[in-house]
Amino acid sequence: EVVSEAASRTIKLAVIPGDGIGPEVIAEAVKVLDAVTANENVTFDKTHFALGAARFLETGDVLTAEDLAAIAAHDAILLGAVGGVPGDPRLRDANIERGLLLGLRFSLDHYVNLRPSILFPGVPSPLAAPGAVDFVVVREGTEGPYVGNGGAIRQGTAQEVANEVSVNTAFGVERVVRFAFGVAAGRPRKRLTLVHKTNVLVFAGSLWQRTVNAVAAEFPEVSVDYLHVDAATIFMVTKPSRFDVVVTDNLFGDILTDLAAAISGGIGLAASGNINPEGRFPSMFEPVHGSAPDIAGKQLADPTAAILSVALLLDHLGLADAAARVSAAVTTDIAGRNTSPDTASRSTAAVGDAIVTLLTSKG
Amino acid sequence: EVVSEAASRTIKLAVIPGDGIGPEVIAEAVKVLDAVTANENVTFDKTHFALGAARFLETGDVLTAEDLAAIAAHDAILLGAVGGVPGDPRLRDANIERGLLLGLRFSLDHYVNLRPSILFPGVPSPLAAPGAVDFVVVREGTEGPYVGNGGAIRQGTAQEVANEVSVNTAFGVERVVRFAFGVAAGRPRKRLTLVHKTNVLVFAGSLWQRTVNAVAAEFPEVSVDYLHVDAATIFMVTKPSRFDVVVTDNLFGDILTDLAAAISGGIGLAASGNINPEGRFPSMFEPVHGSAPDIAGKQLADPTAAILSVALLLDHLGLADAAARVSAAVTTDIAGRNTSPDTASRSTAAVGDAIVTLLTSKG
Ligand SMILES: CC(C)[C@H](C(=O)O)[C@@H](O)C(=O)O
Ligand SMILES: CC(C)[C@H](C(=O)O)[C@@H](O)C(=O)O
Repeated sequence: EVVSEAASRTIKLAVIPGDGIGPEVIAEAVKVLDAVTANENVTFDKTHFALGAARFLETGDVLTAEDLAAIAAHDAILLGAVGGVPGDPRLRDANIERGLLLGLRFSLDHYVNLRPSILFPGVPSPLAAPGAVDFVVVREGTEGPYVGNGGAIRQGTAQEVANEVSVNTAFGVERVVRFAFGVAAGRPRKRLTLVHKTNVLVFAGSLWQRTVNAVAAEFPEVSVDYLHVDAATIFMVTKPSRFDVVVTDNLFGDILTDLAAAISGGIGLAASGNINPEGRFPSMFEPVHGSAPDIAGKQLADPTAAILSVALLLDHLGLADAAARVSAAVTTDIAGRNTSPDTASRSTAAVGDAIVTLLTSKG
Repeated sequence: EVVSEAASRTIKLAVIPGDGIGPEVIAEAVKVLDAVTANENVTFDKTHFALGAARFLETGDVLTAEDLAAIAAHDAILLGAVGGVPGDPRLRDANIERGLLLGLRFSLDHYVNLRPSILFPGVPSPLAAPGAVDFVVVREGTEGPYVGNGGAIRQGTAQEVANEVSVNTAFGVERVVRFAFGVAAGRPRKRLTLVHKTNVLVFAGSLWQRTVNAVAAEFPEVSVDYLHVDAATIFMVTKPSRFDVVVTDNLFGDILTDLAAAISGGIGLAASGNINPEGRFPSMFEPVHGSAPDIAGKQLADPTAAILSVALLLDHLGLADAAARVSAAVTTDIAGRNTSPDTASRSTAAVGDAIVTLLTSKG
């Protein structure tokens, strides 16, 4: 056995398993991360952060300044899912989701929310004829209606007025649009679709459209088109193959990516990266699904979305080879689900183990 | 032949064919309206209004105070579709759509935008296993992000900030929620789903949720649940049969109803009513589809959505029997499309004629 003498790279990884099925899927994701990097010159130095609804119920804290500072000192973040049981009177769900998930995205300037949709071979789609689905949504992550600039007057009276403000800046739109063009330029089809509602949200829409037009000049190889968000949902179910890279705002991206996950095999397979491309803050990788408290602790959750989030994490860290191996192993595992239906009833850990076996038998 | 001596009811109908395929589909809709009411004690006194992109290009007017006053003096409105060729430099599409369509909806206080989705027997759905699709979306029509309260500073500079404001009032939310409960109470399943994004849009979301909770007390027979808009799009493609009545805001309703149309046979079949329930203003009935200038004037458009809008119009006017006859004729016609595929290539007029034949042969 040859022991490499080369200096090993150490990556400080913050792990936030969270609530519900979060800890279960993260256990498998970490298993896979360890397996795929076992023979690499890289060490993941992991710190676990016990954040989420459970921690809030214990301490009353959602995300303290200390939590944030500690997390920010890491190179990357792997998150499971956060949120308690819906309707739990001790919780306001919104506090956990906004305070923690959006708190991290906004504090760590995750202005790119990268959400790939691939219909893996053998995966059933709810669409009768999905065709080839392989696109990525670049969702803006730090602006739009998500900024928390709403308010209400006369709350609880018949004269109540409740407003929500979508804030869009040239700074914020341009950086995410430029990132999306970069993604498009690196893909075979080199096609970018702006999704918005420019005919109604004329000020925000105009800013997005003008920005896309301007940045397009820097990427002559990328072909650009535009869809209203309502029309985009139609194409998502009638011709998803028309999409290559989609760039859109925070709210439209939220809606479109759940629909995209649904048509490409379900939320159990959808991975995402909350990225700060310049690396001033650690980027965060998480499955698109929620904490699903109803099936938590029963080993019923599919860890595949969390494991695919590890692939995105590896890619982001420049470990493209390891990322590709994880994707390949997942693809093989998924294809097998079709031919041996018993694999559909595997436990969360069994799916992780199967993917580890595929990785190590190939390694 | 017996000539009825009973006083005939006269209904003043404003007809706005509009642009693109609008005039073609409206011609068939009017044909059907005339046929189904030929033996009824009712006369439709029709005034045509030449509004839309074409009129704007001629006169520079979109919707004048005179137009509005003239239209408002009618009992109901039948509209085709408005909007010019996308990218026409002489037009700003948004002006026509906002100025005319939204102008009418807001000026005539169409606070209920009623959009039924029915998967008619024999209609192919893009979903592999759609199940029974029969729900109606009650979309709020006069508030939300559609109010036009956006603005921008430093436009065209790197410091631009473009805001959009969603305005929600207790007055506006309560009246549409109460209407939706009424619709739900009149349907066999009596089920109402609020769709919003309460975990992020906390002020607007709280108003909607509290309003639904409050009005629910008046409708104990209606069962109520809640879905985030992103999750609603998932159910729309995985289990649309879960929906009975959906109540939601203007923007979420816009997005969901295009998706709903797509899964239930396409935008060519989707009808809608813009309703002022108290009748202070005339209600307006229109297909959900747009003006499709690319296929205009070629007799290629399917007039079914416009014809089903006539059914909604008749229902609204208390002519439930005539409405049911139109729906039944459309259902029969649609079922036939499956068995004789040549009907798929019928001209716009041929579809209208076929439905008229079904109506008169049964009448
Ligand atoms: C939980 C919620 C705040 C979040 C969002 O709206 O962004 C989720 O839906 C997502 O897409 O990651
Ligand atoms: C044309 C546009 C303004 C309109 C809307 O957004 O309401 C359309 O999409 C619709 O759904 O009727």
